[in-house]
Amino acid sequence: MSFFSSLAAFFWQANDSLNTSSDSLYLWIALAVGIVGLIAALVFARSVLGSDTGTPEMQRISDAIRQGAEAFMRRQYSTIAMIAVGLAIILYLGYRLSPFTAPYANKVVISFLIGATCSALAGQTGMWVSIRSNIRTASAARTSLGRALQIALRGGAVTGLIVVALSLLGVGILFLAFGGLSHPQQTPFKLVGFGFGASLVALFAQLGGGIYTKAADVGADLVGKVEAGIPEDDPRNPAVIADLVGDNVGDCAGRGADIFESTAAENVGAMILGAALYPVFGIKGILFPLIVQAINLIASIVGVSIVHSKEDEDPMHALNKGYYVTSILALVGFAVAVYYMLQGRWWLLGCGICGIITSFLFVRITEYYTETRFRPVQSIAKASLTGPATNIISGLAVGMETPAVPVIVIGCALLLSYYFGVRGLADVATIADYKKGIYGTAIATMGMLSSAAYILAMDTFGPITDNAGGIIEMSNQPHDIREKTDKLDAAGNTTKALTKGYAIGSASLAAFLLFSAYLEAIHDIVSQRLAAAGEVLPASWSFSNVNLASVPVFVGALLGAMLTYLFSSMAIKAVGRAAQTVIQDVHQQFKENPGIMEGTSLPDYGRCVHIVTGAALKEMILPGILAVAMPLAVGVIFRHFSSTFNLKELADSPTIHGVPINLSGAEAVAALLMVGTISGILLAMLMNNGGGAWDNAKKYIETGAYGGKRSEAHKAAVVGDTVGDPFKDTAGPSLHVLIKLLATVTLVLAPLFV
Amino acid sequence: MSFFSSLAAFFWQANDSLNTSSDSLYLWIALAVGIVGLIAALVFARSVLGSDTGTPEMQRISDAIRQGAEAFMRRQYSTIAMIAVGLAIILYLGYRLSPFTAPYANKVVISFLIGATCSALAGQTGMWVSIRSNIRTASAARTSLGRALQIALRGGAVTGLIVVALSLLGVGILFLAFGGLSHPQQTPFKLVGFGFGASLVALFAQLGGGIYTKAADVGADLVGKVEAGIPEDDPRNPAVIADLVGDNVGDCAGRGADIFESTAAENVGAMILGAALYPVFGIKGILFPLIVQAINLIASIVGVSIVHSKEDEDPMHALNKGYYVTSILALVGFAVAVYYMLQGRWWLLGCGICGIITSFLFVRITEYYTETRFRPVQSIAKASLTGPATNIISGLAVGMETPAVPVIVIGCALLLSYYFGVRGLADVATIADYKKGIYGTAIATMGMLSSAAYILAMDTFGPITDNAGGIIEMSNQPHDIREKTDKLDAAGNTTKALTKGYAIGSASLAAFLLFSAYLEAIHDIVSQRLAAAGEVLPASWSFSNVNLASVPVFVGALLGAMLTYLFSSMAIKAVGRAAQTVIQDVHQQFKENPGIMEGTSLPDYGRCVHIVTGAALKEMILPGILAVAMPLAVGVIFRHFSSTFNLKELADSPTIHGVPINLSGAEAVAALLMVGTISGILLAMLMNNGGGAWDNAKKYIETGAYGGKRSEAHKAAVVGDTVGDPFKDTAGPSLHVLIKLLATVTLVLAPLFV
Repeated sequence: MSFFSSLAAFFWQANDSLNTSSDSLYLWIALAVGIVGLIAALVFARSVLGSDTGTPEMQRISDAIRQGAEAFMRRQYSTIAMIAVGLAIILYLGYRLSPFTAPYANKVVISFLIGATCSALAGQTGMWVSIRSNIRTASAARTSLGRALQIALRGGAVTGLIVVALSLLGVGILFLAFGGLSHPQQTPFKLVGFGFGASLVALFAQLGGGIYTKAADVGADLVGKVEAGIPEDDPRNPAVIADLVGDNVGDCAGRGADIFESTAAENVGAMILGAALYPVFGIKGILFPLIVQAINLIASIVGVSIVHSKEDEDPMHALNKGYYVTSILALVGFAVAVYYMLQGRWWLLGCGICGIITSFLFVRITEYYTETRFRPVQSIAKASLTGPATNIISGLAVGMETPAVPVIVIGCALLLSYYFGVRGLADVATIADYKKGIYGTAIATMGMLSSAAYILAMDTFGPITDNAGGIIEMSNQPHDIREKTDKLDAAGNTTKALTKGYAIGSASLAAFLLFSAYLEAIHDIVSQRLAAAGEVLPASWSFSNVNLASVPVFVGALLGAMLTYLFSSMAIKAVGRAAQTVIQDVHQQFKENPGIMEGTSLPDYGRCVHIVTGAALKEMILPGILAVAMPLAVGVIFRHFSSTFNLKELADSPTIHGVPINLSGAEAVAALLMVGTISGILLAMLMNNGGGAWDNAKKYIETGAYGGKRSEAHKAAVVGDTVGDPFKDTAGPSLHVLIKLLATVTLVLAPLFV
Repeated sequence: MSFFSSLAAFFWQANDSLNTSSDSLYLWIALAVGIVGLIAALVFARSVLGSDTGTPEMQRISDAIRQGAEAFMRRQYSTIAMIAVGLAIILYLGYRLSPFTAPYANKVVISFLIGATCSALAGQTGMWVSIRSNIRTASAARTSLGRALQIALRGGAVTGLIVVALSLLGVGILFLAFGGLSHPQQTPFKLVGFGFGASLVALFAQLGGGIYTKAADVGADLVGKVEAGIPEDDPRNPAVIADLVGDNVGDCAGRGADIFESTAAENVGAMILGAALYPVFGIKGILFPLIVQAINLIASIVGVSIVHSKEDEDPMHALNKGYYVTSILALVGFAVAVYYMLQGRWWLLGCGICGIITSFLFVRITEYYTETRFRPVQSIAKASLTGPATNIISGLAVGMETPAVPVIVIGCALLLSYYFGVRGLADVATIADYKKGIYGTAIATMGMLSSAAYILAMDTFGPITDNAGGIIEMSNQPHDIREKTDKLDAAGNTTKALTKGYAIGSASLAAFLLFSAYLEAIHDIVSQRLAAAGEVLPASWSFSNVNLASVPVFVGALLGAMLTYLFSSMAIKAVGRAAQTVIQDVHQQFKENPGIMEGTSLPDYGRCVHIVTGAALKEMILPGILAVAMPLAVGVIFRHFSSTFNLKELADSPTIHGVPINLSGAEAVAALLMVGTISGILLAMLMNNGGGAWDNAKKYIETGAYGGKRSEAHKAAVVGDTVGDPFKDTAGPSLHVLIKLLATVTLVLAPLFV
């Protein structure tokens, strides 16, 4: 062993001496690229905003949507701000309670607030640009399809670049400010507040936006089409603008915050795991995730810039070309980073490739389950022939089938990247295989995220072209222009569906990274407690055991899975209740002003927007609080249970003055997190893909199959589509954010569980 | 420590000397009571069969149903027999492959076949009596409601008593035959085949019956009501008898086998855990579960015997009285058994009381979610006002909400009974707290099952009264008789719903018992391997660690959760496909014989029964095989992965010739089992309660609410009811059986995973 320990000491010293000099350069590079990313976003934004804004009629419609959306965002973010400040105070008091955590109270709260602010900023900016790009895309479509495509993608790229750049700058600057260059191993743990702040805002943004969009949609449809018998988007319907606003806040707001959260949480998690490999890579292992984000920014800027489409080309063709360029550049950059930062251990590049392949496979699987040309959607369309009941049954059956292949893909990706991680570090004897493997899975996650900015640009492309199509349609433009925007709209629908698959894939892969970071955090806390008591943690001990066979841990796991069901139920019911307020207001407007239905006077669109905004924001609070409160409650309550009820038997736990530390609370929370994540991933796949399949089954019938529009089959398919809406646009995406929030909230609250 | 070890030696010897004398008496008592149970069943059956069988018209209808049901059962059980024999051969060959397992091959296969046979026998007998009790109940209803209630309950009691008695006798006799009296500690492990055989038959019985009943129901409805425009149960519909047969095989067949499986699997599991406490209780701890079953039989016989209802009394009143008497007797018997067999350790009686309270709470919660007078069902009924889409959304939201409170109840029950177990054995120093606590949870499960025979009698009461009502209605009996059977039918609906809640509760509580038994089995296998290599297992080692933080284990967990989704999807799709065959046949019959629709000639009912039988049996095979194959594949493949990829690091594993045993396969399977169970419980609750709530929302509207029958709300509610049907009658109950099958299949295959 003396050989190994001297080897370790050698590595340690060698790295230490390099630390303050050349290696910290990587941090400055990452920060510089982050600023370049912001500048590029500005350039794209200027090029979009400088474009023509169309006819006054188009502007009138676009303005109404923009005002409604901005009013919602203002109120939403002031509600979120109040919740965030409240939580910051609770967090501060919680940390001050114990002498162990008190020294960190300031840093955690500051990084929490910065994370929340950056997340809100990312969401707001994305929205701001999108609601201005839609009209410009519509206007450009009147002359050139290629130009319209470019405007929409660049509008989306602003969101993508700002989100990734803000996440990179936020984490990088906090790392610097919290003394990362002098104490690189300890600093990542101090960043956990940043991830939590980001997730908290993302959860509320996604929940609020998701509830709003579907409440307005369902409310407008029920009262308009079903009761009053007027067509969709009829100006006599007072809820029509609320519905259009909803399309915006549902697809844009939240999405930016969601991806911001993903990159932030995963960066912080990967840095924590990098700290465990400090003896091998020094600070470079910790800074690696930031450099990957920098590569992501550069590759995505190039990818977005080269996209231009010929007039008669399928827009997806041009978009895919940009994606391939981005992916290849990211891969090259990844290899360079592995060479310089990870000692050229090529097995670790293999981990990254695992991640990239996983993202491709997820996109393809999503395509299979939600595109019209494959069996699942067609089976739902066929089942519509025998009425709504069989349509629903067959859609639910498809939804329940969807997790099968993705789970196998994720399983393979985790096992392979773990194996590559162990192989890549096989010669390092001082680090446990377990930590090497986990770092391998973290690198795979980074690989998957290495084209996130471009993906997000493609994703935001969706609502922009969707809106552009709406503006063209409502302003009665000629048929050939409408055909162009329809083409863009179809491409936008495809990109939206595919990026949803990408998002789920990265969430599943990242899950392991995130709860490994949680386990590391507990380890760090235990070693601090021992140090404070003047004892030393045995080097061989690591908190890497979440024993499902222990009763409190199993109960924690049960509660985690239950949380995902209860949360989904609440989100879905919230949509129903908020939709009721829309219906009531429309009824009242019809009653107060009979001129509306006669077409002689305009309804009060703003009042309806105002009401649904209030209802959606009220409804988002309870499920949001549940998501934070449940892990907290389990951790705090279960730290008083132990799997043996006899502390003396906790032989494996480190002891303070001979008394073993009871880690039952921490372990039960870990199980809640892990099994909650498993259950959440499966439920989200069921809801997202089921909802997407229902939607496209309806569209397939509308193309003329099984009797086409207005047939009985179409009526049945509309029922399926309506059921799928809150699934795929409210509960599914919110679950997705919930999973990551669980990971960050447990990271932040970890000190309270021990 | 020398004090503790001498204490242990004392206990050991003291028990050993008692072993062959007085303590084995308990086994004989249990067997004798098992025979008493069979005799009581015979007496009840004779009293039922001796009753009047009504008018020739009633008999004609009843005969047609009986013949169809018997034809289905014959074909179903010959299919199951073929599968079982095939699996027996594979099991035999698998066990012969390794020198470690070869000596057990015969015993495992024999107990497997006996378990399968007993399970089939239990299912068959239940069915046999039910399809004969229905007409007799109907006939008695013409003169006396009280007499009809008695016949129906006694008909149900035949099933209940035979199931529990056969399970008791099967396990008891095998225990005796496999040398339980001379090697009580080793023998329980040899009984695992019995549980597996029972579960396998139960799975196929439940799946086949569930698919049949809903395929016939949906097929008959779609072709009759929707296409041909003829009312339900119209004799011109060729599928009408198949539908009525389905009500029988769906509710009766499978149910007997299901409860048989529960008691068998849980008895064997509890005996394995009892073996771990051999130093304390000797053979008495192992025989305790059998004695509890004996108490169950006696208490239930008394409970059934005392039930008689006045003419104007609510039937539920009488049934509940019998239930309370049974429960109180079971509790008293439990206390006596604790006194004599468990050294009067009253904390352990507390565990049993935990189980009994849990069963009460589960029944109440199920009531809340599925009865008309509470919020959930009413919210679905109200949502039907705005069409089928909102009805479905609100039903799914209710379904997703249902696991919340039950999960908290189960969590409390597990933690409390674990704690009571540790307290009850606090003075025993030689046994780890962990094992004491786990035995506590096993006692809680036994407490929950201590009135199983009466519960099963109440459950089978449901389909009997349902059929009786149908016979009365179709044979055009006077209105006042119909009112009587309606009363009975309503009570039957209630008991069916409540016993479903009971079944889920016992499955959840038993889950922990069953996978603890699996961990014990792995421990036993490892100690045998070491013994064979001439080494000794360190006494401190126990296989009680299922570490979710290890990548292969986490992947196993993901796969387990995914299995429950895929299995449900397959079951639901199977219903759809089988229903298509019904529709095709009906179309063909209409085409071949135009006289059917004109009412001039009778359709060929038998052909339709024949076709749906074939379709249902074909469809049950794939999901059934998936359930067996997936744990096998995970165990066999994952034993080649290790969480470290470096066997030297497996420091905790016992070693053979210095090489640690790789337990990754066994651990991954444990995670698959545990997380699969968690996911399965939640999905089953969602489907059972959601389906029940939809059903009752429809019934609520039919009582006149929201426009009553034939209103738009009613149409919407019918859609929800149809969606709920395959949920609550096919996928939900099958999941329920799947969970237990996973537990028994892993127990049997355990030797292949190490």
